[in-house]
Amino acid sequence: MSGTDSLSRTFAALADPTRRAMLTRLAQGAATVGELASPFAMSFAAVSKHLRVLEGAGLVSRGRDAQYRPATLEARPLAAASAWIGDYRRFWNDSFDALADVLETTEPHDPTDPHDKENPR
Amino acid sequence: MSGTDSLSRTFAALADPTRRAMLTRLAQGAATVGELASPFAMSFAAVSKHLRVLEGAGLVSRGRDAQYRPATLEARPLAAASAWIGDYRRFWNDSFDALADVLETTEPHDPTDPHDKENPR
Repeated sequence: MSGTDSLSRTFAALADPTRRAMLTRLAQGAATVGELASPFAMSFAAVSKHLRVLEGAGLVSRGRDAQYRPATLEARPLAAASAWIGDYRRFWNDSFDALADVLETTEPHDPTDPHDKENPR
Repeated sequence: MSGTDSLSRTFAALADPTRRAMLTRLAQGAATVGELASPFAMSFAAVSKHLRVLEGAGLVSRGRDAQYRPATLEARPLAAASAWIGDYRRFWNDSFDALADVLETTEPHDPTDPHDKENPR
């Protein structure tokens, strides 16, 4: 992953459900590898590997305590990721609007419902 | 990439500067593989490979024209990605606030500047 730009490292780090769950756990506070491993039923080695990816993206920092090195969430790289995606907001809003239009046009009408606009009394 | 959850596929697709640039191009309108290849000085094969990743994440759809199959931006998966990252907004806001505090505390003062608050006339 070296040589990759910062935004790509951030997105790559987020492209794994376990790493996202680890960030969610770290949002509650710093945690050791052992504390991170237990809810995921994962080996320390697997957790350490995921932590290294998160560290490489700057999303986690590690404490200096030689034995435990607790991991801390570093959310700042997420700001750039959010800004990049945010530039496309109008496109997904448009697509939701288009979907709503389609649903409205194709909405089934209940002929037994007196409140159905297609069947005014 | 099969078997991967939708959010992971979206983030993985965004984890490459060329694919992000292709989405930016497609935000201007649909484009053929040839039109996508030219600004990036890339082979059709390389562009097609990136397009397949974007298609797999649902970020691009392809037209039915057998010869050109123009690619169209499908922004809706970005809504979920934006929502996931958005949950961490307060953490990066906090870290920017903390940085601003540090910068304010350590701001160098110019003793020759009469407007420097540390050196009132």
